[in-house]
Amino acid sequence: MTTPNILRFTKMHGAGNDFIVLNNCADQLQLNPALIKRLADRHFGIGADQVLVVESSTQADFKYRIFNADGQEVQQCGNGARCFAQYVFDKGLTQKNQITVETLAGIIQPELIRHNWVKVNMGPAEFEPAKVPFVSEGLLSRSIGGLTQYKLPVDAGADVNELWVGVASMGNPHVVLLLEQPASDELVQRLGAVLESHPRFPERVNVGFLNVLDRARAHLRVYERGVGETLACGTGACAAAVVGMKMGLLAERVDVVKTGGTLTIEWSGQSDSDVLMTGPAQTVFEGEFYL
Amino acid sequence: MTTPNILRFTKMHGAGNDFIVLNNCADQLQLNPALIKRLADRHFGIGADQVLVVESSTQADFKYRIFNADGQEVQQCGNGARCFAQYVFDKGLTQKNQITVETLAGIIQPELIRHNWVKVNMGPAEFEPAKVPFVSEGLLSRSIGGLTQYKLPVDAGADVNELWVGVASMGNPHVVLLLEQPASDELVQRLGAVLESHPRFPERVNVGFLNVLDRARAHLRVYERGVGETLACGTGACAAAVVGMKMGLLAERVDVVKTGGTLTIEWSGQSDSDVLMTGPAQTVFEGEFYL
Repeated sequence: MTTPNILRFTKMHGAGNDFIVLNNCADQLQLNPALIKRLADRHFGIGADQVLVVESSTQADFKYRIFNADGQEVQQCGNGARCFAQYVFDKGLTQKNQITVETLAGIIQPELIRHNWVKVNMGPAEFEPAKVPFVSEGLLSRSIGGLTQYKLPVDAGADVNELWVGVASMGNPHVVLLLEQPASDELVQRLGAVLESHPRFPERVNVGFLNVLDRARAHLRVYERGVGETLACGTGACAAAVVGMKMGLLAERVDVVKTGGTLTIEWSGQSDSDVLMTGPAQTVFEGEFYL
Repeated sequence: MTTPNILRFTKMHGAGNDFIVLNNCADQLQLNPALIKRLADRHFGIGADQVLVVESSTQADFKYRIFNADGQEVQQCGNGARCFAQYVFDKGLTQKNQITVETLAGIIQPELIRHNWVKVNMGPAEFEPAKVPFVSEGLLSRSIGGLTQYKLPVDAGADVNELWVGVASMGNPHVVLLLEQPASDELVQRLGAVLESHPRFPERVNVGFLNVLDRARAHLRVYERGVGETLACGTGACAAAVVGMKMGLLAERVDVVKTGGTLTIEWSGQSDSDVLMTGPAQTVFEGEFYL
């Protein structure tokens, strides 16, 4: 038996969104879609939602690459950025609490607030329907606080044929439903499936089920486009929080309680101000994968 | 930051059925259902179908304990037994190719045939309906070779209202459907759900979809009771193979090709003879989990 080649990795999660983190600062890893897919496989590999790769950068402290489980490279992920910041600090790759990170979506600056707790700037929110994108033409609308809600016809069973919804983009499209109580499994599945592929959202949409507990606390479940319900959608928490804030129901700082954990969202309410997300970044285990 | 407590583990799979393997020969691990559940969780833990624990034994070379992902201790698992044998050899806990292992279901003797390839004695097959258990009273039956098939009324859509089935027990109940071609996703989901909880199987049943390729090779998909389709069901491969052998369609040694890999099943055809299963046992990675 020859000595196998070994790939060292760290497994982390941010509110249940889980990541394999690889250190490629020395540019020694031979990454390709087939290997990423193999690593992310939950039965034959390590298993993760995404693979995060730390690389050196000429523009920032680090470069951050993200790959989906299917091997495709994608843009920013808020939960991943938190894990990234915790990882480079834990591994002694930096002594700084706030780092600059080059991503496909530009430079981000995650900040380690305390151990396993990281703040990430998620950029501004966008409410303009065309930019979500959302086809609002011809729909009945109403204003609640500073938010425009739209009356959306839906075919979701005998009891539901229209819904008042808010829409927002955090770089990806979100529709937010305000509920009187935390959403049930049945509701998330039924309305999630119908709204996610509703013809009014040409790029499909992530569906947030928001229940305001008090001005500083809300419950949220998210049905992600193309995926179904997920434990933690960072942009979904941001979108739901800013919709609730704009409606005057939530304060400038709110804890969003989700299935996988709690994320704190801060936003000044100014249209050009960035949304800040703070939440957990947890190392689960260290490993050596046999290549 | 204090030094965290670390739990060393090995992640393995046997034809896609995946396991966390823990060495507790020194009896130093504090195992409890909550910890097992945490380890087996695919987002917050390591992730696995089951947790295998190696312990010392007074009756055999080793003692082998198996826990489901929900924390419950269970009996023998063929795929797990192969990984167990490979693990104790790889870790230098034995130099023997064939070991004796104490389990909740008695002593088993897995044998390392070559690297990552292990043979396990799965015990005898049982075809007596009452012992499966299967309520056959009042059903039309026919004999094919040495096997009795039963005509089972089913409510599985306009095109399927009865099916000829074979039944067998490998310590757990199996029903086997013989198909002209490999089963489609749609068929496995539709008939799997209907048969798994068919009232004629009082303890429910695992459903095998068998397609004989030639006398030495068969394709199989298995819908496991309470789980849905799985990548690798060791007892399912045994049950389908012995049903095919008894019908005279398969030789005494057959390769059963499944979604997660291939298992070789051997059986002499004598009612009291044991069924032997040979298949892969693969180490995927080594890890240190933060307790």
